[in-house]
Amino acid sequence: MKKLLLIALLPCLFAFGAQPENEDATNLKKIFDTELNNGDCYEHLHSLCTEVGGRLSGSPEAEKAVRWGEALLKKLHADTVYLQDVMVPHWVRGAKEKLLMTNNKGVQTPLPVCALGGSVATPSKGVTAKVIEVHSIDELKNLGEAKLKGKVVFFNRPMQANLISTFQAYGECVDQRVDGASAAAPLGAVAVLVRSMNLRQDDYPHTGVQIYKDGVKQIPTAAISTNAADKLSQALKNDPNVTVTLTMSCQTLPDAPSHNVVAEIRGTEHPEQVIVVGGHLDSWDLAQGAHDDGAGVVHSIEVLNLYRKLGWKPKHTIRCVLFMNEENGSRGALKYAEIAKNKNEKNIAAIESDRGGFTPRGFTVGSDSTRNNACLAKLRSWAPLLAPYELRYLESGEGGEDVDYLQSQGTVVYGFIPDSQRYFDHHHAASDTFAGIDKRELELGAASITALVYLIDNYGVE
Amino acid sequence: MKKLLLIALLPCLFAFGAQPENEDATNLKKIFDTELNNGDCYEHLHSLCTEVGGRLSGSPEAEKAVRWGEALLKKLHADTVYLQDVMVPHWVRGAKEKLLMTNNKGVQTPLPVCALGGSVATPSKGVTAKVIEVHSIDELKNLGEAKLKGKVVFFNRPMQANLISTFQAYGECVDQRVDGASAAAPLGAVAVLVRSMNLRQDDYPHTGVQIYKDGVKQIPTAAISTNAADKLSQALKNDPNVTVTLTMSCQTLPDAPSHNVVAEIRGTEHPEQVIVVGGHLDSWDLAQGAHDDGAGVVHSIEVLNLYRKLGWKPKHTIRCVLFMNEENGSRGALKYAEIAKNKNEKNIAAIESDRGGFTPRGFTVGSDSTRNNACLAKLRSWAPLLAPYELRYLESGEGGEDVDYLQSQGTVVYGFIPDSQRYFDHHHAASDTFAGIDKRELELGAASITALVYLIDNYGVE
Repeated sequence: MKKLLLIALLPCLFAFGAQPENEDATNLKKIFDTELNNGDCYEHLHSLCTEVGGRLSGSPEAEKAVRWGEALLKKLHADTVYLQDVMVPHWVRGAKEKLLMTNNKGVQTPLPVCALGGSVATPSKGVTAKVIEVHSIDELKNLGEAKLKGKVVFFNRPMQANLISTFQAYGECVDQRVDGASAAAPLGAVAVLVRSMNLRQDDYPHTGVQIYKDGVKQIPTAAISTNAADKLSQALKNDPNVTVTLTMSCQTLPDAPSHNVVAEIRGTEHPEQVIVVGGHLDSWDLAQGAHDDGAGVVHSIEVLNLYRKLGWKPKHTIRCVLFMNEENGSRGALKYAEIAKNKNEKNIAAIESDRGGFTPRGFTVGSDSTRNNACLAKLRSWAPLLAPYELRYLESGEGGEDVDYLQSQGTVVYGFIPDSQRYFDHHHAASDTFAGIDKRELELGAASITALVYLIDNYGVE
Repeated sequence: MKKLLLIALLPCLFAFGAQPENEDATNLKKIFDTELNNGDCYEHLHSLCTEVGGRLSGSPEAEKAVRWGEALLKKLHADTVYLQDVMVPHWVRGAKEKLLMTNNKGVQTPLPVCALGGSVATPSKGVTAKVIEVHSIDELKNLGEAKLKGKVVFFNRPMQANLISTFQAYGECVDQRVDGASAAAPLGAVAVLVRSMNLRQDDYPHTGVQIYKDGVKQIPTAAISTNAADKLSQALKNDPNVTVTLTMSCQTLPDAPSHNVVAEIRGTEHPEQVIVVGGHLDSWDLAQGAHDDGAGVVHSIEVLNLYRKLGWKPKHTIRCVLFMNEENGSRGALKYAEIAKNKNEKNIAAIESDRGGFTPRGFTVGSDSTRNNACLAKLRSWAPLLAPYELRYLESGEGGEDVDYLQSQGTVVYGFIPDSQRYFDHHHAASDTFAGIDKRELELGAASITALVYLIDNYGVE
């Protein structure tokens, strides 16, 4: 306890002093103190999750989320709040999907299943066929049409547990989900099942986008839970003649009108130069989209909220953007980038939060190759200021799906990097609810991103 | 995704090479791969939590835990498994405690309450008195006997939410719980209530040790949940004549025989030099002691298990110690240190895991002042090897309650530092169950500690 009390004095010692870097330390401490003592992002996320809920692009809930974001940002007294019109894909899940596994004795076992985003429906009586298990698209192609014709292809390569970054494990697996149907259809498969992108053994099927390649026959494709994948795999080992019956009624409707929500605090010295901070407002439909990406939405809103609470006026314009349609089209991100280009806007930096509301670890920075070293060096020059908040991961990397389109306009992009260990427990599944959010972890994220905005506003990007 | 795939190749590039540091990188990767793909610590913790459960010193469950640990370590083929006899305090909670708040209209409200460890009982009909709310022992003393005589003192200083380390927030609050009764009794108070050491608003009372000072009258003392504390505080603002009735039947029985559990893999080059890795086997009685300190127990066991699985023979003896009675007496730690001293053992290093099973952030190192800089420099020299596992917090600090007694014998002590944000949600409360454990987070802890043992075994402590 004695040692703990000694440590307790350090922040105070750090804060008293005349040098500018100590003023920065003081200001960063004000950001964290304000958020942790009196932050609003947890309450905002509760509101988004419970009053709006799941909000897939094109749905009435997505439009409700747009109104929710617009109203909240006005209430928080942003200088400007406006919408950007954008047409978005409109896919609907329809009735709850069914998957029945039938063994050679006729015993039927229902397995937890959900359609992948963009999938076509099955006929109303379902698709019934034998199953071929594969672990990669290469393995599928090697099997060839003779073995696959008329079959359901079952992609069952798990996420690699030994990868420390679960996003890396996801990246090495997700081709099965995104491209599986397009790879299987030309070889005669009638449907595709994919093991959920999840490191846990549980009963949640995880949806996510899949993309039909042009000119390829569109076959139904769905995810099954990790437990169901193991069950199906074992059943196939016992009896290769196991069949499944998949029934889905999803469909793609005409594109629907939607919006990005934009709000600003105008800069005092360089109002024409913009620091963007954003997350995506749409979510999958199976749950409340709490971590993906309700967290990023309320993080981004909280940056403006904290500047207001602290009474700070930024030198550059700080712009919060709630992007529409990250999950299945990125139309909002593309529209934002298009408008910025047409208006010849100067988005000097863009920070994205789309990795959940977990304890912050740091940031990535991405820019064109000529500036990359300078931008990383700048980010790392702030390490002593960020270390008291355990923001120690400062590396080159992506910004994220919603901000990376700005890189071609000279914008330096930043990714907020929270701890990734629990993210895929929730990602795109019915488990992504407000109950999975830890208040402190969420608040630390909001404060961390605000700290980065503060440093960029005062010291630039390189 | 493309960038993610590029990152994926890095560990491989890193692993192939002839220099010794690359062999270390390869070996650390083997540790993490083995644990994350095929670890046992999650299953071991499930067993401890569900087959043994809460295990307060002196209880039959604590002895069951001793047998559990001994049997498991034998099953895992440690070279030696033995027990160290130690007499421990034996406090029992008795019937479930009751706290009733009564307002001036006679309306009674029950509040969640639990006795603090070591407290005396109330009379069987309870203690009924008016309540004085204070926020520190100084404030209590300033009020004086006239205002406190015959009253229940209610300590209501919350943990500070703005402190990034929740252990620091705990350290700055816990004097109310440990010393509150001894400070209040001489001023005529009849009982003490303490706001739970918890950063969340919830209904769990958190127990923990309290210590009666010699010669001071022993009065009953209990913790109430954070929600109950706010409710009581508000009630007192509305009506200072609110009374409470506290009923507890806890008692301290004669000291009971118990044990530390010790297991070793013998060193090949310096078998007489010991690297200790330990957690504490006892827990509070309100829950399963999953994070506190089931996690530390299975982490420590897993170090031996991983060495066995990898077929590695350490140069120094690796000794896993499951300490008894950390929570309310530290008798196991004192006994271990006493035996080590009497036998003139050379415990060169001792690593403690007693901060829960959360995602690892790094380690602290502590030693006598003459070696402190050298030991910290050594720890930090491993930073490049530890960074791929996000072990970036490498600082001076305590080892922990169970290993710090060894410092006077020249042992360098290390504390395992996981993320602290959720720890006090569980600490000493009924919420500390296996359900609060994340498998990957727990496994990363076991692998991290094993990595540190590997580095100390090969490169020493300074």
